[in-house]
Amino acid sequence: MPTVAIFGVGLIGGSFGLALKKAGFKGTIVGVSSEATLRLALERGAIDEAAPMADAARGADLIYLARPIGGILDTLHHLDSCVNSGTLITDVGSTKSAIVAAARKHIRRCTFLGGHPMAGKEKRGVGEADADLFRGRTYVLTPDDPADLENAPAKDFLEWVRRIGARPVVLTPEEHDRTVSFTSHLPQLASTALAATVAEHAGDRLSVAGPGLADTTRLALSSFELWRDILATNSVAIEQALSAYISKLEHVRDNLRTREIESEFEIAAALAATLRK
Amino acid sequence: MPTVAIFGVGLIGGSFGLALKKAGFKGTIVGVSSEATLRLALERGAIDEAAPMADAARGADLIYLARPIGGILDTLHHLDSCVNSGTLITDVGSTKSAIVAAARKHIRRCTFLGGHPMAGKEKRGVGEADADLFRGRTYVLTPDDPADLENAPAKDFLEWVRRIGARPVVLTPEEHDRTVSFTSHLPQLASTALAATVAEHAGDRLSVAGPGLADTTRLALSSFELWRDILATNSVAIEQALSAYISKLEHVRDNLRTREIESEFEIAAALAATLRK
Repeated sequence: MPTVAIFGVGLIGGSFGLALKKAGFKGTIVGVSSEATLRLALERGAIDEAAPMADAARGADLIYLARPIGGILDTLHHLDSCVNSGTLITDVGSTKSAIVAAARKHIRRCTFLGGHPMAGKEKRGVGEADADLFRGRTYVLTPDDPADLENAPAKDFLEWVRRIGARPVVLTPEEHDRTVSFTSHLPQLASTALAATVAEHAGDRLSVAGPGLADTTRLALSSFELWRDILATNSVAIEQALSAYISKLEHVRDNLRTREIESEFEIAAALAATLRK
Repeated sequence: MPTVAIFGVGLIGGSFGLALKKAGFKGTIVGVSSEATLRLALERGAIDEAAPMADAARGADLIYLARPIGGILDTLHHLDSCVNSGTLITDVGSTKSAIVAAARKHIRRCTFLGGHPMAGKEKRGVGEADADLFRGRTYVLTPDDPADLENAPAKDFLEWVRRIGARPVVLTPEEHDRTVSFTSHLPQLASTALAATVAEHAGDRLSVAGPGLADTTRLALSSFELWRDILATNSVAIEQALSAYISKLEHVRDNLRTREIESEFEIAAALAATLRK
């Protein structure tokens, strides 16, 4: 892939550019973003040049859609007429079913391969971009058809995913969305609901809190702007995950004085320990 | 208070000894604990000497009960016959109503003042003790009668609480227990229930998780041993806190696609930001 076009040169897009270069990529990286972002991305070396969307798409072997979900969906509506048949389009959206469905509908002239690098930071923007952001992290790929992974551009992309230190995992879009509804969306909403509950019932006594409250409410700092699209495009799975969590909390509440609660602590501690391995 | 007896020289008890010395305490600190703990506490300088419980109680101006809640309740049953009338007994238990009620019933010959330093660490034991553990942290005091704070031993103790860098806050035992049911016990159970839910529904796909899951499940590593007594001595308040949290989660689930959810994110983010000030 001699030319890569990154649409949305923020934390993830910018990090992908830096990571490619660190991994030895010798081609050209073109950025499509707002003017201020492009200036900073050029300064940081995350991209080699800036271009308008249609020009960047026409010249690209790989189009890397690193905008928020709404921006990715919007771009997919307009991209098909600008791409070459050998181009691979991939994205980094946090939900996959809606995006893969939109690509199936709108992208006819080349291959689309959904992706979701499980990497991030609290702070956003290309200023925070990091060549090592993907190192050791899972990189989910969600082909609409498993054969999509077998063509040359996809194989080439997969090789670069490995070179930047990420670990590819292949799931269907539905498997991905169901999994992250538990491993990512539920923790966010559990944290937001916890902080909102504490605000309502003990907001005037925050000095009387242990350090655990800060840990469990760190995610509650997340901006809604980022979450609006995630909630809208994965609401069925998220509703199911919330219902499962509510059932578990009811079970805990109804068994505070029984041995049941001890087994929940053990299962939970084992999960938390596994996560840290 | 020329002589302080610390019952239970673990993380909190040992840190109290080290903190007193760092703050210029020139009296004697006597430790009551298991043999292995006493040896390590002497080595670390958290105590000056070891003694059996009855001897330590007889010679002490301040008795600092730093055992787990069950151990504090047990000690209160046996302590009265060994204390002098001018002695102050205080404790560090994580719930206060049951302990203050036990003291009211069993401690007749001297004053008891309930306490709860909002300080801790993930690791336990005197090996982790730290002279600065209380620095900048809230130290809740729960007098059974506000006049209990006015006698000389209590004033003296309060002065040392300030000298070790803690910030005293006076609450009734019930106010304390209701507050910590939201600020400490609910975060613990929310984290335990979250980890148990993820284990049940996505335990085989933990590589597909963002870093937020680790944050929100850190508390789930806590041992049940420590929590058994807390849950048993504050179950009514905890049930109410869990019910409030469950209602909030139902509200979130039922409003994933409405503007309501945005206001929950805002309230939650404001609480999380306040906690970090």
